[in-house]
Amino acid sequence: MDEIKVIEIKKNVFEDNDKDAEDLRKELKDKGVFLLNLMSAPGSGKTTTLIQTLNRIKNKVRVAVMEADIDSDVDAVKIVEATGVPSIQLHTGGMCHLDAEMTRQGLDNVGLKDVDLVVLENVGNLVCPAEFDTGAVRNAMILSVPEGDDKPLKYPLMFTVCDLVLINKTDVMPYFDFDLERCKSYIHQRNPKAQVIPICAKTGEGVDAFVQWLLAEVNAWKNN
Amino acid sequence: MDEIKVIEIKKNVFEDNDKDAEDLRKELKDKGVFLLNLMSAPGSGKTTTLIQTLNRIKNKVRVAVMEADIDSDVDAVKIVEATGVPSIQLHTGGMCHLDAEMTRQGLDNVGLKDVDLVVLENVGNLVCPAEFDTGAVRNAMILSVPEGDDKPLKYPLMFTVCDLVLINKTDVMPYFDFDLERCKSYIHQRNPKAQVIPICAKTGEGVDAFVQWLLAEVNAWKNN
Repeated sequence: MDEIKVIEIKKNVFEDNDKDAEDLRKELKDKGVFLLNLMSAPGSGKTTTLIQTLNRIKNKVRVAVMEADIDSDVDAVKIVEATGVPSIQLHTGGMCHLDAEMTRQGLDNVGLKDVDLVVLENVGNLVCPAEFDTGAVRNAMILSVPEGDDKPLKYPLMFTVCDLVLINKTDVMPYFDFDLERCKSYIHQRNPKAQVIPICAKTGEGVDAFVQWLLAEVNAWKNN
Repeated sequence: MDEIKVIEIKKNVFEDNDKDAEDLRKELKDKGVFLLNLMSAPGSGKTTTLIQTLNRIKNKVRVAVMEADIDSDVDAVKIVEATGVPSIQLHTGGMCHLDAEMTRQGLDNVGLKDVDLVVLENVGNLVCPAEFDTGAVRNAMILSVPEGDDKPLKYPLMFTVCDLVLINKTDVMPYFDFDLERCKSYIHQRNPKAQVIPICAKTGEGVDAFVQWLLAEVNAWKNN
């Protein structure tokens, strides 16, 4: 396997993040590239979900992955080994989130010429990443069953900014006090338009529904 | 039940956090009060662990709880209902962590006269809380089995600053690919002195060992 490209991204102290994010989105629109910002708490299964998704989608669209992490490159290595999809690792240098400028530094390294879809796996954190528009076309998050169905009450902004919530690890639902309908109602209190898709990334159950949503979004972005 | 006291804490823009933290620790030493800073990712079981712990410890030391959260007061309500231990809710106003000044604002509301031990439940986040010394005497964190045994590789600072790591939800170990020995070795790569105690907050297994550690720490702080 080729060595994973690791990018040490830097924060721009003169930033106007909302403007940077809008500029980035415009550029992505011009170039026909869809950027998905995938967020979650640590250990919710972002990387496993991505692997299942990439293996279903990689022959339908040209896709690349940016794995953001404070340290380590375990995720990018895993993604490349399990899917063959081009992946780079973004080191945030201790930062707890990505902003639009940091995202752009990543995209400059991915290159926007030969790609339809870039998935950004954000830092595992339900707080800070929700506060910074990365310039992505859509925000999605994963809430895993063991975290509990009350998380939309406790991390309101995260659920407010997400277009899609994947409820992962449904296979262990019998071992946890997690009520899917109650969780959905908490999510919709925060964001009535949020779509909710239950999945089990370990077995692949429900991932097709996510792939369908993602392909429809990519096509709409490229063609409308 | 009495209504929960909710404190809206503010960030001090002129702060020198390390100095504030040292000052706070000195004051706690003078007054014979032990402050434990309990950190974790969202949904790792901090509140359930606290309930089990408080019910075992509340007749041995005078204890109070500060529950930090971005929003909501579900945790403080739960704690009071399940244990009767005095608890206040700290609202961080969107902030992803507590610093020493914010902690002091909480302690001013708890009052340090009639208490031996205060437990601060920090914001659910493995990144930012690790960067700010709260003034606590000891830092502890909970890593739950569903999050995965690789977390010390991905959130290095959190594991470096913690004196104690509780590995929670050991009851679901058979359903997850979590190797306790591998996890311990990752933790000790980050912090060779960290103590590790496996627990199951749901059933109470292992919580006695945590209580023993905590009582020994409180006594050492008050008497040495």
